[in-house]
Amino acid sequence: MSVLIVGTTALDSIKTPTAENPRLLGGSASHAAVAASYFSPVKLAGGVGEDFPKKYIELYRRHKIDLEGLQTLPGKTFHWSGQYELNMNNRRTLMTELGVIETFSPTLPKSYQNSQFVLLGNIAPVLQHRVLDQMRHPKFVVADSMDLWLNIALPDLLKLLKRIDCFVLNDSEAHQLTKEDNVFVALEKIHKLGPKYVIIKKGSHGSILSGPKGFFICPAYPLHKVVDPTGAGDSFAGGMVGYLAGARGSIDANIRRAMIYGSVVASFCCEGFGLNRTTKIKRNDIEKRVKELEKFTRF
Amino acid sequence: MSVLIVGTTALDSIKTPTAENPRLLGGSASHAAVAASYFSPVKLAGGVGEDFPKKYIELYRRHKIDLEGLQTLPGKTFHWSGQYELNMNNRRTLMTELGVIETFSPTLPKSYQNSQFVLLGNIAPVLQHRVLDQMRHPKFVVADSMDLWLNIALPDLLKLLKRIDCFVLNDSEAHQLTKEDNVFVALEKIHKLGPKYVIIKKGSHGSILSGPKGFFICPAYPLHKVVDPTGAGDSFAGGMVGYLAGARGSIDANIRRAMIYGSVVASFCCEGFGLNRTTKIKRNDIEKRVKELEKFTRF
Repeated sequence: MSVLIVGTTALDSIKTPTAENPRLLGGSASHAAVAASYFSPVKLAGGVGEDFPKKYIELYRRHKIDLEGLQTLPGKTFHWSGQYELNMNNRRTLMTELGVIETFSPTLPKSYQNSQFVLLGNIAPVLQHRVLDQMRHPKFVVADSMDLWLNIALPDLLKLLKRIDCFVLNDSEAHQLTKEDNVFVALEKIHKLGPKYVIIKKGSHGSILSGPKGFFICPAYPLHKVVDPTGAGDSFAGGMVGYLAGARGSIDANIRRAMIYGSVVASFCCEGFGLNRTTKIKRNDIEKRVKELEKFTRF
Repeated sequence: MSVLIVGTTALDSIKTPTAENPRLLGGSASHAAVAASYFSPVKLAGGVGEDFPKKYIELYRRHKIDLEGLQTLPGKTFHWSGQYELNMNNRRTLMTELGVIETFSPTLPKSYQNSQFVLLGNIAPVLQHRVLDQMRHPKFVVADSMDLWLNIALPDLLKLLKRIDCFVLNDSEAHQLTKEDNVFVALEKIHKLGPKYVIIKKGSHGSILSGPKGFFICPAYPLHKVVDPTGAGDSFAGGMVGYLAGARGSIDANIRRAMIYGSVVASFCCEGFGLNRTTKIKRNDIEKRVKELEKFTRF
């Protein structure tokens, strides 16, 4: 089955102490869509400016991503620029040009409206609502968010949590939302806000699912070098939803394995700038790392 | 088979915003010995002062711990006092009275010298060496340490690493020892210092083993409330070595499961002050949590 992915489609300029990478393809929807494309057909909803490079349209096409819902709007593409410190653990934003994202509103083509699997990638909660308003009967809706929306759009986000099946957030956002240090108490509190499935991401420490079948402690793939973690969380969510859409059987039967696949695609994302590494892998590279994770966790 | 455990035998006074717990039984050897006692007979080597409460000797005896190697020395028992902050994540030392630990030197009774499994719990590396000097042919030697010894006794510790099979340390100590942020690169560097098995502990994020059969990503048991993490690392190491000593088959066949058992005993340790909770469990309570961890990690 296909998966509908909405989020930002952006240009990222990333500086490190040794390299400059201007105007890479970035944004939550780009990372999630490429990740999901290894498992299912993907329909992308987003907005870019007139300056959006053709080579990135071709990149989407190489991943067989349906672009009927990608709007080209008058103005410039959303552009983020950031700098990493020597140890690659801290980054700071140098510049944010919102461009067309400021006025973008997702309008879903008819062919998108029956999608069964939906990933509301990180974008303003009001736009995530607008996507759901246009859907018929989605089977499984996953939403991601970020600290910014917890700060400036909390009421919209809280309403969204009542409309989705699965909420994915990182540990610092879980703390911000619940005021809880303990991850397991935070998971309980987030369930009470709506979602039946809650996943807290902990970066290199993996992630934790709380769902109807209890907890799943999902490992991160061991990486000896992290080149650029930008988009890793989006890749995780995209890989997970893509795997779910491509698998037979119930959500409960598949979601743990789906998280493992998401975790593996996120590991590839971290090994290159932007989408450089994620776009160069084959399904078989993913399967190899999944097998390794099986070995690393069996006891 | 029995396991020999050496380390500190101490009194811990622990303050929190809501409670004072004066002169609890503490020290690396106490926590490790009680943890190991659920799986194997334990021989304890340590030194206490004339003020050491009889009730703690009785506690050791209830766990069938062999005390032939526990010396009572003129002077006071090693006494540590610390205070936890409201969120229980940070603690500061209020007072340290070294007492008899300042002059203690482990002298092993004959009955200890043939032990096959040895845990050199956290104590000065020079004393860990002295224990090894008295052993015949131990099969598997595990050592723990702490930041203090990395700071003031690094040459002794580096020599020790060449004499042991397995080194257990936490992530901040691994960083201090190798100057590496990346856990997997740090593991490689520590192997080069001697030990065939290296385990990096990451608190609530679990632990990672690197050994001849590759990595093992060991989960922490999900806890909704941490009362007092003092001794959790010692409980992990003690539970692990105790399980190994009690199991049939090779180290490689058992060490992953041994870490799971260590992780579970450490989870009980965190649920009470000092040894309050760890001494009140039954083997069956441990088995229940091991089964839960199986469920939480299967995919």
